[in-house]
Amino acid sequence: MKTFKIGLLGLGTVGGGTVNILQTTLDEIQRRIGHNIEVSIIAVRDLNRPRPVDTTGITMTDNPENVINHPEVDIVVELMGGTALAKDLLTQAIKNGKHIVTANKALIAEFGNELFALANQNNVIVNYEAAVAGGIPIIKAIREGLAANKIEWLAGIINGTGNYILTEMAQPGADFEKVLKTAQELGYAEADPTFDVEGIDAAHKLTILASDAFGIELQFNKTYTEGISKISAQDIQFADLLGYKIKHLGIANRTKNGFSLRVHPSLVAKDVLIANVDGVMNAVMVKGDHVGPTMYYGPGAGAGPTASAVVADIIDVIRAQSQNVDDRVPGLGFRTDSLTQAPVESIEEITSGYYLRCFVNDQAGALAKISATLADYQISVEQLHQEPSENNPDDATLVIITDKVKESVLNQALQKLIELDVVDSQLQRIRVADLG
Amino acid sequence: MKTFKIGLLGLGTVGGGTVNILQTTLDEIQRRIGHNIEVSIIAVRDLNRPRPVDTTGITMTDNPENVINHPEVDIVVELMGGTALAKDLLTQAIKNGKHIVTANKALIAEFGNELFALANQNNVIVNYEAAVAGGIPIIKAIREGLAANKIEWLAGIINGTGNYILTEMAQPGADFEKVLKTAQELGYAEADPTFDVEGIDAAHKLTILASDAFGIELQFNKTYTEGISKISAQDIQFADLLGYKIKHLGIANRTKNGFSLRVHPSLVAKDVLIANVDGVMNAVMVKGDHVGPTMYYGPGAGAGPTASAVVADIIDVIRAQSQNVDDRVPGLGFRTDSLTQAPVESIEEITSGYYLRCFVNDQAGALAKISATLADYQISVEQLHQEPSENNPDDATLVIITDKVKESVLNQALQKLIELDVVDSQLQRIRVADLG
Repeated sequence: MKTFKIGLLGLGTVGGGTVNILQTTLDEIQRRIGHNIEVSIIAVRDLNRPRPVDTTGITMTDNPENVINHPEVDIVVELMGGTALAKDLLTQAIKNGKHIVTANKALIAEFGNELFALANQNNVIVNYEAAVAGGIPIIKAIREGLAANKIEWLAGIINGTGNYILTEMAQPGADFEKVLKTAQELGYAEADPTFDVEGIDAAHKLTILASDAFGIELQFNKTYTEGISKISAQDIQFADLLGYKIKHLGIANRTKNGFSLRVHPSLVAKDVLIANVDGVMNAVMVKGDHVGPTMYYGPGAGAGPTASAVVADIIDVIRAQSQNVDDRVPGLGFRTDSLTQAPVESIEEITSGYYLRCFVNDQAGALAKISATLADYQISVEQLHQEPSENNPDDATLVIITDKVKESVLNQALQKLIELDVVDSQLQRIRVADLG
Repeated sequence: MKTFKIGLLGLGTVGGGTVNILQTTLDEIQRRIGHNIEVSIIAVRDLNRPRPVDTTGITMTDNPENVINHPEVDIVVELMGGTALAKDLLTQAIKNGKHIVTANKALIAEFGNELFALANQNNVIVNYEAAVAGGIPIIKAIREGLAANKIEWLAGIINGTGNYILTEMAQPGADFEKVLKTAQELGYAEADPTFDVEGIDAAHKLTILASDAFGIELQFNKTYTEGISKISAQDIQFADLLGYKIKHLGIANRTKNGFSLRVHPSLVAKDVLIANVDGVMNAVMVKGDHVGPTMYYGPGAGAGPTASAVVADIIDVIRAQSQNVDDRVPGLGFRTDSLTQAPVESIEEITSGYYLRCFVNDQAGALAKISATLADYQISVEQLHQEPSENNPDDATLVIITDKVKESVLNQALQKLIELDVVDSQLQRIRVADLG
């Protein structure tokens, strides 16, 4: 039995959860690993603030350098968030030969390539299970559990705030602003909700999942990101009528010449299991060529779930430290010299079905022109629904679900419709996810 | 780059799938592990039968001893099924210092304790991801992904045949015998369906999951097993009316003094995600004390999915062979000297809600007596539904869902009702699963 010493950067929600697990569940963990884990030192911003856990016996410091340079620390656990300082500290920690566990999705998505390269040079491990989908062991599932497969695609509900908002918007009388306010009151959404609602948080996570699935470098800046703030309660009702739910999905798939990485609202057929993942819960579907469709579901945030992933990563580091460096699971699941250079393509390269909603003044004439224009671009209509306006029976709201078409072609057709003055520029366009 | 040599016992559906993956996806696997994998020798029963895959360059033998004693074989992959011969062969293979990968749930559930002990003595690994829930990496999720948790309970749809039958029985006009016949025609059920339909296959899997979750010895003979052949289409309709689906679940949970391991039909509230897992698909919910509820979903059988798990296990062996023996993930997820001796308790010790369905001759009188008897045993009624008989309005079918009660107490109450001649001895009793 050896004691592994942890140095913690940050003692907020997840940091507190991590210390709590190591205090309450250490006997169960020792039954599994036969080693001891001890939190030796924690860096916090303000030494005088009250703590969520008992820190008796742990050295507290307001200088993070004391953690990363601590000679007895084996594993540095970074739970401070932010990218600039965290990157500097972890860079130095890696150079000091410390293994790293982090829950920092922005850091890995934006600076992971550098960090993994540095970790390789220094023969240390960088684990980040907690960075994606909280307590769900999705990184492990992709890097190890499905390692016999060529992954074809993955699609996930990887932001609990957004999923809560879309779920609640299906209730009668709810709209985006109202639900967002409730989410803020319940603590599910930040005062500034941009990161969650506009899909940036999900894009960080999707970037990481895609690299693990395909063996490509992390390319956050190539990940297409579209938020949910323009989804109306009416869209959710129309989608329901046509057999779909609207979910904010992160999707990564293979394209003709490379890969597509994207976060956007998506119509999902109700009979696909992930369409029934509601509230703040997360879920990720992964389709492998041999295994077929699989799904992983659980809480995507919170002290307990996220800390569950952090401590699992610590356990993995402890188990892997005696392994040949070359036999360890590589940072992105694939060996650095095997990462493919095939490009992440523009969103215009994807092929998808589309939900279109528009208001038309002259319903009979408009329908004829819309149909003709779509036909010109060889876009087939799969479902069509129209609701006459309450005030003027000649006006109508028109909802169309198209068959699959290349996005660049759809864009040309929509541009044509706007030029013809058939539809207003407020035309709603939501992609239909094919998760079959 | 080292070449790891595989000796295969059996080349049926899963064996063919395994060779197929190693032929078609080896380049992707090498990108991950940086080593080569080669199938060197395969033992089959009859050398003259046609094969599902090209075996050019592979030594074929009808003597399995040639596989387990082959000096160059690193990993013996057992896909022959059955317990007696498989146990003898793997025992010898382990003594020969070979690592083992097996998909044999019966073998692990019934003889795993001996095999893991022997593997420990010989410093080799025995992996068995494919034995439970096909392609879903559920063993890895429990042994590693959730290793920071004390697992509170798990509940799984772990037999695709049974789930297909229950799903189809919800269609109008379907009954058990009719659906079973279709399942047999589609190849989802064996000619003798006992193993699947009576829950023996699921009990093997549940036994394994429970040991990995709680750190207890494999105790297949203590696993309570009840099949689905007595579920009627009427039960499925009544359950639907009351807000439930009927699923054949394997459930493992902690009890006051130990553990409960059981496979039986269960009512599952429709708003729990696993209630929506239909057809031949499998899913396992795992509740950890820190992570909360998680779920793992995918195909539970078939060449591709099962072989996906077999090859993932091979990859794990390759990655773990350089590790200190003591740092490897233990066979049952917990170190042998840490397995708890707390008992697996009798089914009578569980606490559950119950669905009761009975036919009564005198509906007013019977309801009074049933209510009084349940009250005598302090059993509360949560929902009650009655349907008058078409022929005689005094006769009725009565459906009751009780609040939670200890099963031994419920049994006393039901015995009393039968003695009083209030209900017939055909009384249907199905447990309600609490997966909240």
